[in-house]
This record gives sequence, structure tokens and C-alpha cells, in this order.
Amino acid sequence: MSAETVETVEGAPTHTGPHGYSKEKDLHLKRLRRIEGQIRGLQRMVEEDVYCIDILTQVSAGTKALQSFAVQLLQEHLRHCVADAAAGGGDVDEKVEEATAAIARLLRS
Amino acid sequence: MSAETVETVEGAPTHTGPHGYSKEKDLHLKRLRRIEGQIRGLQRMVEEDVYCIDILTQVSAGTKALQSFAVQLLQEHLRHCVADAAAGGGDVDEKVEEATAAIARLLRS
Amino acid sequence: MSAETVETVEGAPTHTGPHGYSKEKDLHLKRLRRIEGQIRGLQRMVEEDVYCIDILTQVSAGTKALQSFAVQLLQEHLRHCVADAAAGGGDVDEKVEEATAAIARLLRS
Amino acid sequence: MSAETVETVEGAPTHTGPHGYSKEKDLHLKRLRRIEGQIRGLQRMVEEDVYCIDILTQVSAGTKALQSFAVQLLQEHLRHCVADAAAGGGDVDEKVEEATAAIARLLRS
Repeated sequence: MSAETVETVEGAPTHTGPHGYSKEKDLHLKRLRRIEGQIRGLQRMVEEDVYCIDILTQVSAGTKALQSFAVQLLQEHLRHCVADAAAGGGDVDEKVEEATAAIARLLRS
Repeated sequence: MSAETVETVEGAPTHTGPHGYSKEKDLHLKRLRRIEGQIRGLQRMVEEDVYCIDILTQVSAGTKALQSFAVQLLQEHLRHCVADAAAGGGDVDEKVEEATAAIARLLRS
Repeated sequence: MSAETVETVEGAPTHTGPHGYSKEKDLHLKRLRRIEGQIRGLQRMVEEDVYCIDILTQVSAGTKALQSFAVQLLQEHLRHCVADAAAGGGDVDEKVEEATAAIARLLRS
Repeated sequence: MSAETVETVEGAPTHTGPHGYSKEKDLHLKRLRRIEGQIRGLQRMVEEDVYCIDILTQVSAGTKALQSFAVQLLQEHLRHCVADAAAGGGDVDEKVEEATAAIARLLRS
């Protein structure tokens, strides 16, 4: 099953690392590879004509895994990028505003 | 980037196909391969220390893509599996109940 | 605490009842009054300067209650309006399409 | 339409105010009264046998309004309670942890 991958990565990096999540990089990569495996599992279910409801159950599992990856990343961002800006006199308004906008996008997705 | 894949597929198929989505199989597979590409894109962003907020933006895009795949599959399920059960005197209560449970899971994920 | 109520009800009724939910009207009204009470509870928490996190916990409870009301209504709609259209030769494509659009809106809200 | 209100307010206030949102109290109260009006609007739609799909459209509107109230409150909490803890040597770990848990609950609701 060759993966025709269309990888468009919008939002080019605007701040060089390391970031709040950098210390846990291996854990995050392991999570993302697991989610990648779940998406390939969905492809196989579609190829093998698995019942729609069983596929939808897997979609919910994949979405939950993505959301918990996002929550973990957000916690590290708040703890480091936002808190450091507050403690070090950085632009905390901007940090809080962009974090809140990211949370709003997650809520709507 | 070797993908250590852990593919656990719960919910073994309970109804043999073809199903509502079978006619659009290629379209669904193309969508899922695109989502797989987005997840690999997230892995690369983490490896390259991209800014947290830019990664979270991509997570929202991936979650939205998964949800719209689910909505498409659900429409085909309602149109065929559920409607056919109603038209053909099948167990429509069971079909509606399992479709509603799948929708509730999607809402909570 | 006089409630300055701004009640705008978009989407004027397009199909006269009774509908799938009509038999359970009292149960639905009881649920909605309970949610109304939760929203007034939020107002009181804001007036009494309750801690932000405790208010957010109540918002999640209110959102969950609204979503489960929606899922219940959806189940009755699928079981009656959609299934009856399928069984009685009605326009099932239209019914499935509008139900799917409603599910997509719920997922994005 | 007498409102049988069951107002259970879990999570008794744990931190005395004023809080991040206190300056915008009137705006928040106005929003919540509007949401209260939307919930009463839903009750009237059910009483008047309005079509299920039109009711579900209003539920999505009410849920969105609740979520945007939560995002606004969260921004003020991050900007004041979390940032002040970071700047003033308070327990920023605890603040970040409880904010992240609140975000996770909102995502699952």
C-alpha cells in the first residue's frame, strides 16, 4: 500500500526552538507514529469493506489521540513559552492571544 | 523516517460488505492517505522544532479532515444501510441506535 | 436577577409536526429547563466572582447536556422522519442530506 | 412557562476573586443571559412542534455561544491568573495543570 503522500505543512515555523515540547520529543513522535498507524488501519478497513460503524469507531479513536497530543503540547507551551514570557517581561499578551486562538481552533475542529 | 507502526484495529468487522461507502472507496482511500501525510507532516514539524502554535494549527487541520471523512461515511451509511433497513423491513431500530451511538462518540472525541 | 432575554429563533419551522420527538416532548422540555438552570447558575458564579476554572467546569457540563439533548433528538429524527421517508417512498436523499448537515454543524460547534 | 430550575453548581469556589474576568463581568453576564434566552427559545420550538433539524440548528448556535464564552474566560484566566503566578513566583505548575485540564474537558464536551 504505497502512501501517495500530499504533505502540505502550512504555518512555516515562526519561532526557532527549542520549545516547551522539545524535552518530550521522543514521546510525541511515538504518539504521532501510533496515530499514523491508526490512519493506515482505517485505510485497510475501507479496502476490506469493514462495516461503516466499526470504521467510525476507529475515527473517534484517532481523533481522540490527536486531541490528547494537542492538549499535551499545549500544556508544555503554556508552562514554558507563555510562563517564561510572563516571568521574563516578554510579550505575554501576544503569547496568550495566540494560545487562545489555537484552543478556539481545536474546539471548532 | 521509519514508521514504527502500532496498528491495532478494534471492532472487528461485524457485517460483510459492500456497504454504503463501497462505491466511493477510492475517494475515501485518497482522503485517508492525505490525512496520513498530514500526520507525517506533524512528525517532521516536531523533529524540526517547529513552534508549538504552528503544530497545533496542523493538528486542527488533521482533526477536521478526519471529522469530514467521518461525516461523509455517515451520510452514505444513513442513505444505504439505515434507509435500506427501513424500506426493506429490516431492523431499523438497531441501525438507528448504532448510528446514533457512533455520532455521540464523534461528538465527544 | 431579571433575565434580559434576547431570544432570536432563526430557522422558522419548515415542516409541521408532530415529529419524531413529539412523543417525548415533556422529557425534552424538562432537560431544556435543567440546562436553562445551569446557564443561570453560570450567571450567579460570575456575579459571585467564583474561580475561572470552576466556571469552565460548569460550561463543559452545560455543553455536554446540550449535546446529549441534540443526540436524543437526532435519534428520534432518524428513527421516524428519515426511516418513514425511506419506508414510504418519500424524499430520503433530502432527509439524509439535511440530517448529515445538522450532524456536521454539531461536530463543529 | 414556569422554569423548574434545577441549578446544581458543582465545584464550589476555591479561590476568592477578583479574577481575570472580573473587569469584563457585565459583558460576560450579557452573553450568558443571551444564551439563557436561546435555551428558552429551544423550549418554545419543542412546545410548538418545530421541525427537528431547525431545533438542531439552534442547539449548534447555543453550543457555539457557550464555547466562545469559555474561550473568552480562558484567555482572561491565562492572561491574569497564570501569567501573574509566573511573574510573581506563584505555583505556575498548578495553574497550568488546572487550565490544561479545563481545556481537555471543553474539548471532550
